[in-house]
Order: sequence, then C-alpha cells, then structure tokens
Amino acid sequence: MRYELHYWSGIQGRGEYLRLALEEAGAAYVEVVRLPESQGGGDGAMLARLDEADERQPPFAPPFLKAGKRVIAQTANILQFLGPRLGLVGASENARLWTHQLQLTIADLVNEVHDAHHPIAVSLYYHEQKPEAKRRTQHLIAERLPKFLGYFERVLERAPGGGKWLAGGKLSYADLSLFQTLAGLRYAYPKAMAKLEPAWPRIVALHDRVAARPRIAAYLASSRRVPFNEHDVFRHYPELDRA
Amino acid sequence: MRYELHYWSGIQGRGEYLRLALEEAGAAYVEVVRLPESQGGGDGAMLARLDEADERQPPFAPPFLKAGKRVIAQTANILQFLGPRLGLVGASENARLWTHQLQLTIADLVNEVHDAHHPIAVSLYYHEQKPEAKRRTQHLIAERLPKFLGYFERVLERAPGGGKWLAGGKLSYADLSLFQTLAGLRYAYPKAMAKLEPAWPRIVALHDRVAARPRIAAYLASSRRVPFNEHDVFRHYPELDRA
Repeated sequence: MRYELHYWSGIQGRGEYLRLALEEAGAAYVEVVRLPESQGGGDGAMLARLDEADERQPPFAPPFLKAGKRVIAQTANILQFLGPRLGLVGASENARLWTHQLQLTIADLVNEVHDAHHPIAVSLYYHEQKPEAKRRTQHLIAERLPKFLGYFERVLERAPGGGKWLAGGKLSYADLSLFQTLAGLRYAYPKAMAKLEPAWPRIVALHDRVAARPRIAAYLASSRRVPFNEHDVFRHYPELDRA
Repeated sequence: MRYELHYWSGIQGRGEYLRLALEEAGAAYVEVVRLPESQGGGDGAMLARLDEADERQPPFAPPFLKAGKRVIAQTANILQFLGPRLGLVGASENARLWTHQLQLTIADLVNEVHDAHHPIAVSLYYHEQKPEAKRRTQHLIAERLPKFLGYFERVLERAPGGGKWLAGGKLSYADLSLFQTLAGLRYAYPKAMAKLEPAWPRIVALHDRVAARPRIAAYLASSRRVPFNEHDVFRHYPELDRA
C-alpha cells in the first residue's frame, strides 16, 4: 500500500505525528503537496481537494490520508487506522484502546499549546492577540504542562516492560507522538522546559530513545523534516517563554 | 454487562455524550458519583479514584468508564468502545472509522465552545477572563460555528439514506452527539443560534429526530438529565450572546 498524505507543506503541525509513524515503519508514502503542481502539488490544491476528497465522507481539515479508495481524517483516527498496518500498536483490543486513549490525551495537550499563542481566534495573527497569549501561556507553563507531562511520566513509571514505552513492552505510535511533543515544547519554551524537564526523566529518556531509532534519526536529518517555525503549532516567541 | 460511568455529578459536560449513548441503547449502567457516599458516591471520591482506577492505565481526566475489569477514558474513545456493543455504529471498519472521525470533529467543536468562556485558563473563573471571553466568543459565533455546523450540514446532505443520519442509514453515536451539541449551543447562544440555524435545516431535523426517540425523550424528561447550567461546557452568559 502506497499512502498519500495530504497536509500543509510548510509546517510540522499535526501532520508530523503521521509522518513520524510512516517514517518509523518505512512505509511507502507520498506528500502530495510537495509534488509539482502538474501532479497535484501545492497547499491550494490540497485545500481544494479537501472538499472533493471523498464526496460522501469529506474531511473537516488537514491532515487527511488516502489509502487506496479510503480517505481518513483526524490525526488520532488516522494513527489508529495505520497502527496495526504499520506494526505500531499492540494487537489486542485493550492495547488499541489504551494507545488511542494516550494519543487523544496528547492531542488535547497539543491543542492547548496551539491555543496558547492563539487564545482568541485562529483567524487573527499572533500579534493581534499578544497580551492574551502572554496570559494564557503563563498558565500553560505553570499549570498545564506539569499536569499533562506529569501524567505521561506516571504512565511510563507504571508501564510494563520497565517503562521504556507508554503502552507496554513495544514502541507504539503514542511514543512517537510524545517524542514530537517534547521536541516541540523544547523548541517553543527552552527556558521553561529546562526548568521543568528534570521532573520527567522517563519522558526525556523516551524522547532520546525515539530520536536514536535508525529510521527516525535518518528522517530528522533529512530535508523531509520541516524545521520548526513560527507558522506552526509549536512556536518560539521569546516573550512567552519564562523559566 | 453493567457499565459504571464516572463523571462529575452536577454537569452534562463531556459525560453527557456517554449518557446519551447508554440511554438510547437501554444499557444497564450506574453513575457512581450519584450513589450514597458509602457506595463510592460523590465527586471527591471520583477524583480520588481517577488515579487509582487502573494502576497501569490511569485516565487523565473524567469521564471514564468501567466495563468489567477495563477502565477506558477519553469520551470519543469510550464511544468507540461502546459503539459496537450498544449497536450505535456500523459493523464495517469504514463505518467505525468514519463515525469516530465525525465524533472527533464534534469534540473539537465542543472544545472551542468551552474555551470561548475560558480562553485564558481553566483554573480561573469566567469573571477573571471576561474581556477575553467576549472577544473569543465573537469569533466563535461569526467564524467557527458556521464552519463546523456548515460542515455537518454538508455531511448530512451527502449521506446515504436521505441524510437522516450522519454516518448513513442508521443512527450512530455521532448523531446523538450532534443532537447534544446543537441543544447546548441553543442554550448558550439563543440569539445567535436563532439567526444562524436556518442555514442548517438538516442538523435541526436530526436534532428533532433524536429528541423524539422514545428512550431519549424519556431520559430528557427524567431527573437523570442534569439541567444546563453555568458550571458546564455550554454556558449562557447573555453578554456573550449576539445575534
């Protein structure tokens, strides 16, 4: 199966959680927006396709994945679809539900990080909601990051198999997602994270373990990995970062 | 199977999406917080159980569901678990993924509605973030509600079976969730919704169809249905409601 990933070309965003899964599995996939325009490339063509992609089951927003005739949207839903096919989730119903539950909790955290620089509206620029962003980010750093990351640290502490991976003895897509989220938080809030991180040694070790996997390391070093930037979910605005 | 639902006693909140599914199916379930304290009742006991509920797979937040020895959290994940067991989702993988995709999109909308009255922090009261809430709610009403509800209207328009139900010819848990969301929006923003609703006749018809189902009608008329209130996800603050 050759998968088609449809997502914005210039950001990691929510699409990155899918890229990491596809890369770790060595799956055959193409990012359609990165093709020449004559082959459907470009963000505009993707947006136009959003509504045509599947007349009966249209995605609400990118990312969406085409797998043969199927069109699937919602990042966590796509990961749930890919998980068994890419060997990135346990086979039992319990393993699938638990891994998905973790993924949805990561998605909640990612939403909160996004909204910290866009607390009023996605239709406004950051500079149009800067005082509100400052206020929200203070609460994010002081309250929400410790709550979410403290939770994942606890999950690792209790996980079978020595706490290497969130959902037990084997790497799952949720581990890739936690890696990405920690990497993003470090980019966005280097001062705050330097202070907070020592409380989460298991998450830091998981991050390093994921980064060292051969396919992930090759991907991160490649031009396929879009650099972090200030159009993305994780943004570094020095005025928001407080130790 | 007798299910145990664990959620705040005083609000509909995200737990309501589970209550509606359990009620529609006539499932045997108990809301543990509503039991006498000697039997584990009370919100405090629920919070204490959150972390003990399953040592290996702790929920991050309510709601969570106990089904035998299983403990499952994240509303959409619980619905996905219950769907086939309660006859509230199609049998094929495609039907399950599509219904879940719709549910996750409804969850995104519900998050945005919540954040419209809490744009800065969940740890602050509404009155501590009122100017920001006013600003965010204007964008919610002008931009986000039309985008989300316009999308669901389009899904119904294209759905097989005459557009009665979101995921095809048969009621699914996503229909119950869309009903609840419309009901909540009407409560929160009566003026704005009166103006917007004519654009979404299929959603309004779906709402009425769900409300008329015998078990749902009985539930809505019962004391098990917590009234809408201002501690909930959908809140009516007249100063935020604009036609």
